[in-house]
Amino acid sequence: MGLGVVGGGVVRALAAKRERIVAQIGRPVSVRRVLVRDVERYREALPPGVALTSDATELLDDPELQIIVEVMGGDDPAFSYIQKALHKGKHVVTANKDVMARHGPEVLSHAAEHGVSIRFEASVGGGIPIIGPLLQDLRANDITAVNAIINGTTNYMLTRMAHGGLGYAEALAEAQRLGYAEADSSADVDGVDAANKLAILSTLAFRTIVRDTDVYREGIDRLAPADFTYAAELGYVIKLLATSCMAGGDVQARAHPAFLRLDNPLANVDGVYNAVELEGDLVDWAMFQGPGAGSDPTTSAVLGDLLATARQIASGGGAPRPPELDRDLQIQPIGLLKTKYYLRLRAFDRPGVMARIAQVLGDLEVSLASVMQKEVDLADGLAEIVVTTHAAHEVAVQQAVSRLAALDVVEEVSNVIRIEDGAR
Amino acid sequence: MGLGVVGGGVVRALAAKRERIVAQIGRPVSVRRVLVRDVERYREALPPGVALTSDATELLDDPELQIIVEVMGGDDPAFSYIQKALHKGKHVVTANKDVMARHGPEVLSHAAEHGVSIRFEASVGGGIPIIGPLLQDLRANDITAVNAIINGTTNYMLTRMAHGGLGYAEALAEAQRLGYAEADSSADVDGVDAANKLAILSTLAFRTIVRDTDVYREGIDRLAPADFTYAAELGYVIKLLATSCMAGGDVQARAHPAFLRLDNPLANVDGVYNAVELEGDLVDWAMFQGPGAGSDPTTSAVLGDLLATARQIASGGGAPRPPELDRDLQIQPIGLLKTKYYLRLRAFDRPGVMARIAQVLGDLEVSLASVMQKEVDLADGLAEIVVTTHAAHEVAVQQAVSRLAALDVVEEVSNVIRIEDGAR
Repeated sequence: MGLGVVGGGVVRALAAKRERIVAQIGRPVSVRRVLVRDVERYREALPPGVALTSDATELLDDPELQIIVEVMGGDDPAFSYIQKALHKGKHVVTANKDVMARHGPEVLSHAAEHGVSIRFEASVGGGIPIIGPLLQDLRANDITAVNAIINGTTNYMLTRMAHGGLGYAEALAEAQRLGYAEADSSADVDGVDAANKLAILSTLAFRTIVRDTDVYREGIDRLAPADFTYAAELGYVIKLLATSCMAGGDVQARAHPAFLRLDNPLANVDGVYNAVELEGDLVDWAMFQGPGAGSDPTTSAVLGDLLATARQIASGGGAPRPPELDRDLQIQPIGLLKTKYYLRLRAFDRPGVMARIAQVLGDLEVSLASVMQKEVDLADGLAEIVVTTHAAHEVAVQQAVSRLAALDVVEEVSNVIRIEDGAR
Repeated sequence: MGLGVVGGGVVRALAAKRERIVAQIGRPVSVRRVLVRDVERYREALPPGVALTSDATELLDDPELQIIVEVMGGDDPAFSYIQKALHKGKHVVTANKDVMARHGPEVLSHAAEHGVSIRFEASVGGGIPIIGPLLQDLRANDITAVNAIINGTTNYMLTRMAHGGLGYAEALAEAQRLGYAEADSSADVDGVDAANKLAILSTLAFRTIVRDTDVYREGIDRLAPADFTYAAELGYVIKLLATSCMAGGDVQARAHPAFLRLDNPLANVDGVYNAVELEGDLVDWAMFQGPGAGSDPTTSAVLGDLLATARQIASGGGAPRPPELDRDLQIQPIGLLKTKYYLRLRAFDRPGVMARIAQVLGDLEVSLASVMQKEVDLADGLAEIVVTTHAAHEVAVQQAVSRLAALDVVEEVSNVIRIEDGAR
C-alpha cells in the first residue's frame, strides 16, 4: 500500500535481491498487488506480474496475500486498512509513525487477537535498528530511560544553525532545497514528528500506553542565533531532544530543544542522522545511530521486517506474541520535571536590574548557576542577560518566567531552554 | 552450563524477573539443572528447585529441558556439549565466542539439520544488540563493511595510555586491578579475542565462512607512549580496530592497532565500551554502542536470547531458519591491503639519512605524506623519525620496513601502524 519513495524502494529492492532472498528465506517474496492513488501514473514503474489498483479491497480481500506492507503514511485511511488486514489474518509491516503513535496499543492487541504479526521498525529512526533490539535483544531489561534525536530535518537545521551560522528561516529553506524537509515541514519543526516517534519507543520501552498526546513538546522555531552562541560559550550544543524515563513510578516523556553537554554522545550526532540511547537495568545503556530517514534506509527497515515475517511464515509457526503492554503507568505532568534551565532575557540596562531578576528567581527557589550580561549593543538601552539555573522544578521556572516578563525592567524573556546535563 | 559471573547473573535475573517474564512470554522460564565443575561450591547460591550437577549428560539427556544455556566458555568441552544438545533437539543459547569463531558454521548447520535454534548474541559486544540487528533488521542489506571496537580490556588500556599517560605495562596492571583484564590477558592484548568476535560478525555479515584464523591480527603490546604522542600530534587516536569488508569480491578481515581520525565515531568510544559500525547497501551505515563486557550486560544479551527462544517455543512454530551462509568467498591475504601507514624509526642523526629513507620508500612506490624528525634527545646520536604515507600496498610497506631496518643508518623500525582515514 503506497508507492512513494519507500514503496518504490521496497518493490525495487525485492526484485533486485530476489535470488538471495530465496537463499535466505527458502522461498521467494513476491509483490502481487500495489495500492496507489493514481493507477495511470505508476504503470510504467513496476516489474511484470504486479497488479496496480486504487481499490484497497483488492488487497484486503485477496486470500492469497499473506503480508500487507503499508507505506502510504498518514493516519487515515492507513489505520483502517491495517486493522482490516489484521482482521483478515494477514501479517502487516508498516512504516507508519502516525498510526503507531496514535493507535499503537489497539493495533498490537488487534494483531494478537487474530494471531498475526505487526512489525513497524521503519516507523522510528529510518534504517536504524531500534524497535527490533528493544523488543528482542534488550527484552529482559527493565528500561529506565530513552534519549533520542529522532527527527532528521530539525537535526540538520540545528547543525547548520550551530556550525553554519544560519538563522532559523535560512536553515529551513536550505533543508527544503536539499529535500530533507517537506514543503509542509510543520510536523518536523513543531516537534510533532519527534513526539510521535518517542510515544512509540516509550510504549514499548516502559510496557505501558504512551500516546503522541502524552508527550510534552516544543518546536525549534523560537531558537535564535544568540542561543547557539551562548550554548557554545557555556559548553553545550542545542538539539531537539526526545526523552522519556521512569520518574517515581510514572512515565515522563517530552520532546523539545535542549542544551546537551559536549561529552553527551547525542551532542555529536549531526546532520540528518538519528540516534537513540536506551538505559536498562541489565545493559546499563546502549546507543543506536545511523541515517534517520531517506528512501534506502527506510527500505532497509521495511524489508528487514518483511523478511522476518516471511521467515516466520516459512518456519510454520504462529506469529510471535506481540509486545505485552502489561503495565498501566501514569504520565507525569511537565510541571513536575526537575532539570536545569537556560533563560535569555532582554532587559533595560539600569542599576539594580540584575538584583530584581535574581530576587524573582530566589523567591521561587530557583537557584542561579551562572549569569552573563552582554554589553549594551542593542538599541534603546537594552542589554541581553543570560541566566542558567541549578536543577529546579519546571512549574517554578515557568512561574518565574511569567513574573520576569512582567517586570518593568524586563522587555521580554526571549527564550527558555532546558539543560540536560547528564553525560556518559 | 556454567555458573560464573554470567551464569550466576542469568539465574538471578530469571528469578527476579519471573513475573514479568510470564506477562511477556505467556509462561514462566524455569532453570531446572545447572552444570558446574564443583557442586559443593555453588550449592548455597541457587534458588530452590534448581539441581546442581557436574555431569553434563544429566542436562543433555533430560527430555524435559527445552533450552540449554551454555555460558561456561572455552572451546572444549563447550563445543561438544552444544552439538550434543542440538542433536537432542534442544534449542541452545550461548555466549561462547571461542566456539562460534572456530565452529560457527558447523554449529549453525547442525542446528538447521535438527530443526532447533542456536542464538549467540552475547558472544560479541557484551550487552550491545548486534547479532540480532544484523540477522533481523538489517538482513535485507548486502553488508559491505564491519568496523568495530570489540575488546573492552584493550580499549580501556588504550584509553588510559592515550589520556592518562600510562605505559603498556602500567595500563595492563591497572586493567587487571580493576577486574577488566583476566590474570591471563593474552587473548585480549594479542588481538585474539577481537579477531574471534570479528570472525563471528564477518561470517554473518558476508554470509560466508570466516574463521578466527582467517582474521589477520596484531596485538597492542608494541605500542609505546611515543606512538600516542605522535598520534595526537597528527590528529588521530590509537584503537584496536577490528575491521572487515568486501574487497574485490573477496573478504578482508583484520584486527590490529590503528590510527583513527578524531571525527571517526569509533575514535570517541573510550574505556571498556564497545562499538560496532556496519555498512550496507540500503542502510548506508549504522552504529551500535554500549558496554562490551561485564556480568549484567552479558546477562542482558543471554536473557534476551533465552526469552526469544521461549517466545518461539510458545508460538508453536519451528525454529527460525538459521542464517544461511550462501556464499563461498575467499579471504584476501593481508599483503593486498591498501591503506595509509605510520612508521616510527630510530635512526642516526647524520646528513643524508632522510634521503635514504625516502629513497627506500620511493623505490617501492610508497609515497610519503608527512615526515617528522624530533630533536636528538636520545642517547648515542639517535633521532626519532616519524613518517606517514599515502595509501600504499601492505606488501610494499612490509618490504620497505625490512629494507629500512637493514639500512646502516637506521637502528630500528620501532613501530608500523595502519592509518584508517575513513571518516563519517
